[in-house]
Formats: sequence, C-alpha cells, structure tokens
Amino acid sequence: MRTIDWVDGAIEMIDQTRLPGAVATVRAGDLDTLIDAVSRLAVRGAPALGVAGAFGVALLAALHPGDEARVRSEAERLRAARPTAVNLAWGVDRALAALSGGPAAVLAEAERIRDEDIAACRAQGLLGADLVRSLVTRPAVRVMTICNTGSLATVERGTAFGVALTLFEQGVLAELLACETRPLLQGARLTTWEAAREGMPYRLIVDSAGPFLLTRGHADVVMIGADRIAANGDTANKIGSYSLALGARAAGVPFLVVAPESTVDMATARGGEIEIEDRGSDEVIGFRSEHTAAPGTVALNPAFDVTPHELITAIVTDRRVVRLDRGESLAGVPLGARAAT
Amino acid sequence: MRTIDWVDGAIEMIDQTRLPGAVATVRAGDLDTLIDAVSRLAVRGAPALGVAGAFGVALLAALHPGDEARVRSEAERLRAARPTAVNLAWGVDRALAALSGGPAAVLAEAERIRDEDIAACRAQGLLGADLVRSLVTRPAVRVMTICNTGSLATVERGTAFGVALTLFEQGVLAELLACETRPLLQGARLTTWEAAREGMPYRLIVDSAGPFLLTRGHADVVMIGADRIAANGDTANKIGSYSLALGARAAGVPFLVVAPESTVDMATARGGEIEIEDRGSDEVIGFRSEHTAAPGTVALNPAFDVTPHELITAIVTDRRVVRLDRGESLAGVPLGARAAT
Repeated sequence: MRTIDWVDGAIEMIDQTRLPGAVATVRAGDLDTLIDAVSRLAVRGAPALGVAGAFGVALLAALHPGDEARVRSEAERLRAARPTAVNLAWGVDRALAALSGGPAAVLAEAERIRDEDIAACRAQGLLGADLVRSLVTRPAVRVMTICNTGSLATVERGTAFGVALTLFEQGVLAELLACETRPLLQGARLTTWEAAREGMPYRLIVDSAGPFLLTRGHADVVMIGADRIAANGDTANKIGSYSLALGARAAGVPFLVVAPESTVDMATARGGEIEIEDRGSDEVIGFRSEHTAAPGTVALNPAFDVTPHELITAIVTDRRVVRLDRGESLAGVPLGARAAT
Repeated sequence: MRTIDWVDGAIEMIDQTRLPGAVATVRAGDLDTLIDAVSRLAVRGAPALGVAGAFGVALLAALHPGDEARVRSEAERLRAARPTAVNLAWGVDRALAALSGGPAAVLAEAERIRDEDIAACRAQGLLGADLVRSLVTRPAVRVMTICNTGSLATVERGTAFGVALTLFEQGVLAELLACETRPLLQGARLTTWEAAREGMPYRLIVDSAGPFLLTRGHADVVMIGADRIAANGDTANKIGSYSLALGARAAGVPFLVVAPESTVDMATARGGEIEIEDRGSDEVIGFRSEHTAAPGTVALNPAFDVTPHELITAIVTDRRVVRLDRGESLAGVPLGARAAT
C-alpha cells in the first residue's frame, strides 16, 4: 500500500488523521479536496508532501488542458496550503516545469518524483542496514527511533523506519522501540501501526524513557529521520531527537540519521542558524478530547530540535554513508533543502 | 490548603485524581474510605503517604479505643493498600508505636509526622533557594522541573517545587518550566495546577523538549525530587529525570536533587542496584478515554530512572546541602529509606 498515489485520474492518500483507529483513503479529484487533505495533515512528511504537490499540478493540468495560466494560479493555492513545507513547493515547481509538454508530461514528471522517492527509500534502507550490521555485533538488532519515518512520511518504506524494515526483511531485526513522540504522537499513532502492519516486532515507549533504556542496554542503535541537515552535519528533526542523541552517546550506542540527499541544506552552515518553530499551546495541554493541564496553562512547544554533528555517528543518504564519527563531511552533496513536518 | 490533614475527627485529602478539572476533597472517617483513596491514587507522593498511614492509625485508635488487637489488624489492611510504598508502612508503624498511650497519643504522633514534613519542606526550600541564588548569576531564576514535587506530594510546599516556591516568595523566580511527565502526566495535571494556584509564572513543556530548551538557554537550573537516593548519590526518580540531567550537563546548567534525608538509602550502594518497576502498557498506549497506539501495541514502561551522581551538582535535604560536584558525600546521613510514587 502506497501512502499517496495516482489512481484512475485522481490522487489517493491514506488519511493519516484517522490512524491507527481506522484505515481510510482520501480520493482527491479536485484541488480543494487535495488542499484540505494537506492542510489538516491527512498527508504529511516531507517526501510525501513533495509527491502530493507534483500530483496536484498533474491534476490541475488534466482538469484545465491548454490553460497554463489557470494551472499556474491554482498551483499557487496548493503551494500556500502549508507555507513552511518546502517540499510541497518543490514538488509543485518540478511538475510545473513540465507544463509546456501538456497534461501527460506533467503526470509523467509527477510519477517520476514518486518513483524517485521510492527508489531513494529503498537505497537508504540497504545502505543503512549494511552500516547497522557492521556497527552492531549482536546477531539480531534492536533499533530505537522517534516520530514516524515510515511509508506514511514518504511513498513506500520510509527513511529511518525503512532501514529497520530492511533489517526485518533480512531476518536480523530483534525489536523496534518506538518513542511515542509527544505532542502529536506520530510514533504512537503511526509508527506502531506501520510496524504492526509489516509484522515487525516492536514496543512503544514514552519519549523520556529512551535515554535511560539505552543505559540499561535495551537498544543497539538509534535511528532518526531529518527535516533539515546543515552543511556541518547538525540535524534538525522532531523534538526529542537531541535527547536520544545525548542518551546514545552516554551509553556508547551508534546514532544514525537517515534522509535523502535533498534534505541536506548546504546553504545553512550549522544548526544554530536554524530557527525552531514554536507550535503553540494547544498540542501540549491535552490530547484530542482530553485536557491534561490546569485551565489557562501556556506551553512552550518547539516542534523540532537540533542534534549537533558531534553526537551523530553517520548520516545515511540515498547515495552514500557519511561517517561523521570518522571526520567525513557532507562536502560534495548537492544543494537542495527539503523542509518537513 | 494542606494536601492531607486531620479535621474534626477524620482525614481530609485533596482528591488528586480529579485535578486539574475539579478541586474535590475526600473525607475519610472510616478505614475503607481511606484505603480506597490510597489505592486509586487520590493521595500520592512519598511524604503524603507517610502522613496518610499515620492518620489512618489515629483514625483506627479513635474508632476502637482500648482494642489494640483490632487496631493492629486493621492497620495491616491499610499497609497493604500500596505494598510498594515504603512511606505508607513507615507512617503506620510510627503511629502504632504510640498506641499504648491511647487514641490521643496516636493522634499526637500522627500530627507530629505531619508537622515534621511541613518543617522539612520549609527547610529544604530555604536551603535550596540559597544554593540556587549562589549558583545562578541572573537576578531572576528560571527553573525546569519534572513530575509533581509540590504540596500534593507532601503536606505543604513540597520538595523541588518548594524551592521554586521559596524563590517565588523571595521575588526572584522568573519562570517555572514544568515537564508534563508522561505517561501519567503529573507535571501537566498537578504541577501546573499548583503553580497557577500560587500565582507563580510557569509554562508547560513536553518531556523531550527539556534537554533541547536547556541548550537554547531557557532555564538556569534543573531541580527534581527523589524516590530513593543511593549511598553514592545516584538518584532514582520519575522517568525522564536522567534525560534532563544529561541535558543540563551538556548545557552547563546546575542539576539539583531536593529530598528529605529519609529518602537516602545508605543500604543501597549505587543506582545500578535499584530495580526499576515496569508499570505495563496501559499507561502508555493512551490517555484516559483516548487510545493513541495501534491495537495490540505493547509498551515498555519503566516508572523510574536512575541519574548517576556524576551528573548531579548537589543534593539538598532538610538539613544540609551535599555538593557532589565538589566531591562531598552522603556519609553521615542517617539510614532510612522512603520509597515513593
């Protein structure tokens, strides 16, 4: 099952807001339905949003053949649906560049973006699994991870989750320990669902238990995805990643970042330059219908944190393994940031 | 308002399961009502449970004057209401030791335990505030903490929270940053309520944001309570404490443990000897009515973690400040463990 795909002239997506309670599909045959899905996070994750943007332009090109001006103006509305999601704009722009070739050319370009993402995830999975097997001496590997970096964040397989999936397919995954990932619980809601669907052995933990469980020997490697990787290797990712990196370092456990090369932003020299979005109080003071804090409570809610490159053993991309622990650098990786969600 | 007290011949307690939604009082004029309150965590926190145990014996002595055998057998039922809560048994035993003096003597002993706890918290608050003011150069102090260590865990004021309260009363508290404390959310539910009630400036954060916010300079000191302190200073406390200690060390922020001397367990040489209770899946896979994880998900749920003494700047008790960062030790602290909740 793909997270997002083009099916019979429309875009079909798993509605991630319904998981894990229900597996429902959103079918977008018009732009408003797609914009609604993007806005309410029915589809999320940097690579998946890039594909959504490209398929959105393919949809517009099919609906308004020959009317380039209309396609371009409507595409602006799609781009604005998640203004901070750089990937969405990236996918829109790449598809628009094919517009002069007509609807079939735009769809072909969108499908190429989809296929590139699938291939990139598969390559990261293999490179990552090879690295993990070289770093871990135990015959079966216990992986700790945070957030959702599975097929739901991409099209198939995922980034860090995809490495765990590859280890599972190779018969050497002992357990995936998924951090629940407060405040939005992508680990609890999405990663457990994906692991269960694949039949992988997994357990859920609260985020703050991660570092301690590492000291007690519960995992052999920590793997995360990335929202943005600075030129020096500092990595912005879901809040909680930095604390796992501290725990991994203290416990002597390798800490890997798994992300496509498009996530590397050579224009950002170091993590300290990355501004951290505060997403406000609502996500923290409760969960769905349940209020957890005293009335009037205000939260400080950084959505991301930055893990300094010194704490990262290696960065695994779709093309290479960069061993930061051996002094290797990202020099030579092509420019091109993708931001994420 | 005291968390627990003796009022007109019965025990009155704030029902902590109703907070922060409602402030309700449980009045226990018979043993079954008290046992029910203890069992369902309407009253919790090591010192508060000690007082509950002692008042429970006072209640029994008043209900069955002259019938020592009955008082002792009923007291066993109370002791068994939370078998792992050492303080509950400690309070029961101390009150039972006064039984030969009659109901008035038992009540006097129970009230003495209550008053000693109040005095201990006040002393810790003053010693802790003095230490913080000597360690922090800013005129107003920003404190990060986890779990609930306020009056709700004691009788009045609390331990780590009590130090923040003292700083507030001294006019030098800039902000209390409360970690929500998954899975049971004592920080979100109880600490925000206490801070709001006192009029203290505070904000709530998810647990995993703590270490990162320290790197970005959001707090000047981290303070936690303790469930058990080993002879070498290693400290068992709510899960998430260790990760804050790692973050504090990386950011160069002082990390303080605030607890009465009865928490020091000289019979435990080091933290590695402390067995960590796993509280099972239910607390992690959802919150109240909301399920968060895929059906069938199993959680690994350590209730406590252990912070090694190397990461602790100082331990503040009701009688002294032990500067672990200067090589001072706990030698000379009286034996006597209290476990906690």
